[in-house]
This record gives sequence, C-alpha cells and structure tokens, in this order.
Amino acid sequence: MATLYHAPRSRSFRVLWTLEELQLPYTLEVLPFPPRAFAKAYLGVNPLGTVPLFLDKDVRMTESCAICQYLAGRHSPGGLGVLPSERGYSDYLNYLSFGEATLMFPLAVYLRYTKVEPSERRLPQAAEDYRRFFFGRLRNIDALLADGRQYICADRFTVADISVGYSLLFAENNALQAEFPVNVSNYLARLKSITSFEKARQIESSAPLSSLAP
Amino acid sequence: MATLYHAPRSRSFRVLWTLEELQLPYTLEVLPFPPRAFAKAYLGVNPLGTVPLFLDKDVRMTESCAICQYLAGRHSPGGLGVLPSERGYSDYLNYLSFGEATLMFPLAVYLRYTKVEPSERRLPQAAEDYRRFFFGRLRNIDALLADGRQYICADRFTVADISVGYSLLFAENNALQAEFPVNVSNYLARLKSITSFEKARQIESSAPLSSLAP
Repeated sequence: MATLYHAPRSRSFRVLWTLEELQLPYTLEVLPFPPRAFAKAYLGVNPLGTVPLFLDKDVRMTESCAICQYLAGRHSPGGLGVLPSERGYSDYLNYLSFGEATLMFPLAVYLRYTKVEPSERRLPQAAEDYRRFFFGRLRNIDALLADGRQYICADRFTVADISVGYSLLFAENNALQAEFPVNVSNYLARLKSITSFEKARQIESSAPLSSLAP
Repeated sequence: MATLYHAPRSRSFRVLWTLEELQLPYTLEVLPFPPRAFAKAYLGVNPLGTVPLFLDKDVRMTESCAICQYLAGRHSPGGLGVLPSERGYSDYLNYLSFGEATLMFPLAVYLRYTKVEPSERRLPQAAEDYRRFFFGRLRNIDALLADGRQYICADRFTVADISVGYSLLFAENNALQAEFPVNVSNYLARLKSITSFEKARQIESSAPLSSLAP
C-alpha cells in the first residue's frame, strides 16, 4: 500500500485531497510542521525533511504537484487528469505548475517573514514584496475565471484545481482572503464544497501523529 | 508557427533549449529582462509581464517547465520526455517540478535581494536565508547523482535535466558554483557539453531584440 507523509495544512494537503478524490487506499503518517524541526526522526526517512513524501513500491516522490499529476495520470487520466489528446492539456500542465511555482512560492516567503521566523528575524519588507507578488500573479487566475468557467481547465475538476486551490487555501489560512478578486473567492468556495476536500480536511484534523514524531 | 517570448538567461532558456534539442521551427521574440520594466508594450501580449510566453495556435503557456513537458510529450514522448509506462516516469515528474519549485525559487529570492533591488532595498538576511535553502535542497541532487548516473532519470537526457540544469546554470551565473557538490559540478559540465545547449546559448546572445522592446 502507498504511504503519504503529511503535515496538516502543508503542501501535502494537495496529495491527501487527490488520494481522497480518487478513493485510493493509503497509509497516512502525520507529522508536526516543519518536520525538520519537530520530528527529527523523519530525516531518516526523507533527508530533505520536507513533506509530502509519497512512497509506493519503487515510487518515491517529494513534489506535491508532481505526485498529484502522477496519481491522476495513473488512476483517472481522462477524469482528474487531462489526456494529451484533449484540448485542455496545455492549460492543465500550465496551471498545475502555476499553482506552485508562481502562486505558492511567494506565499511561503510571506509566511516565513511574518510568522515562522522568530520576531528579531522577521522582514516586513520581504513579506510585503512577496504579498504583492502573489496578488499580482493572482490577477491571471481572476482573468481566466472571468469567462464564467467553473474550473481552471478542461471544463471539469482536475488536479490543476487542486494545485491552484491549495495556494488559495494557504492564503486564506494566512488571512489574505479579503483581497481576493471576486472570481477567485467564488472559485475557492466552489472547491471547498467538493466532498473530497471536506473529507481530506477531516482526516488531517483527526488522524493521530506518526510514531516518528516525539 | 510557434512563438517563444524570451529574455536572455531567464527561465525561458529552458524552453529555448528544448526547442533546439527537438529541432522545431519557431519564431523568437527577445525581450530585455525584466520585460515588465523594460518592454512595457509586452504587457499587451502577456499581462503577467513574465517570460517565457509560448504561443502555438490555441496553446498559450507561461510556465517554463510545463512548456518543456508539453513539447517533449508532443514531439518526443519516449525520448526527451518519459512515457507513463516507463520505470523512470515518477522521477521524471518529480524532478521536472523540483528544478523549479524547490531549486529555482530560492535563487530568485537570492537574486532579488542581492542584485535586482536598488541598494537601499537589498536584504542580506533574506538573500542568505534562501542561499542556504538552495544548497540544502541541492544535497538531494548530489545524493541522487552519487550512484554514477549521467542524467537525473530514465538513463537518458530529458526535460527533467533541462529543468534542474537551468537552476544550476542560474546559480553559476550568480557566482554560486564554487559551493556545488562534486557530483553536481560534473553533472552541470555534462549538460553544458550537449550540442543543443551550446546552440541555444548562441541564439540568445545573437538574436536581435523584439520590436516590442523600445
């Protein structure tokens, strides 16, 4: 059976959500965040110290969007994934990447310098620079959704929505949602109403900690 | 014919390198970096102001690694791409993402606060935090290469190498190569000896500026 090493509210939520949407069997190992600091035994499993880590026989992956793409391609290629022969395929690849490489990274910098670092190491300028970076790039998602589409590509819910949607959730968890453009707010509300989202949230809030955590 | 909007030494080099490796026909529009500041007319083509922008009939993509994956999948799925049925497929997806989402983003923060911002806005602490972040994650690539493999996955040169390799080039362009672990240095030297790399470098250094640039 596959194993997902997960920390609540971290990027590994994308994988948890995907596993629930696909209704796949898996073992969940829940770690405190960041595991590098709070579950040092985990470094023996993943020297990077990052979550997610997804293991399944000889498959070993650490990049959340890549794991979602892999799972969708393997278990639901023309459903939660998009087939290369479909019209929406280029958008699918683009927004899978955009959700992390363009939207999530500025939020990670923002969080680091507003909350994660001890107060003497906080950097209001860097936090503000990357908050603005995030909202600048978010206009692209708002413009895309302005044509009335329900999902980011291919006229259906796919892991590209899980990629982008997680970054929006992360922004919301960090009190940035008041500035969301209206199409973005409505889109996030739509994603949060999906059964597998609610299920994944419930699982991460109730699962016991891994034996790797002290 | 496809069009690539490109700025020398930016992430769009990944796409240029892929196009040259595949020997595809394309039109190149060369912009100064960052185009948002130095070629404002480009905002009419790409409101994000970012490069790359790749256009081909109804295909419109802005994420460098996604464009490389799309082109490899379309033109060389079992060559420069990796097929879902191949053993190396999960590594392929993982390292395509890793090259950007884990290795490149800390370098972008480093560059911003050491060179791009005017001197009064530079942040030595943020630059150093993300320099360390990059070298921490780079150990994963060094460990992977320690088994003697020539390429990152699938026993051949793929766009996953272009994803990771570009981040290493970027680090080298910013004088960080002295700290590369030995397997990483050798790997980068190997990538730079590939004909299409040299060709792409030559093209970006000799192509005239786009009419969108002032």
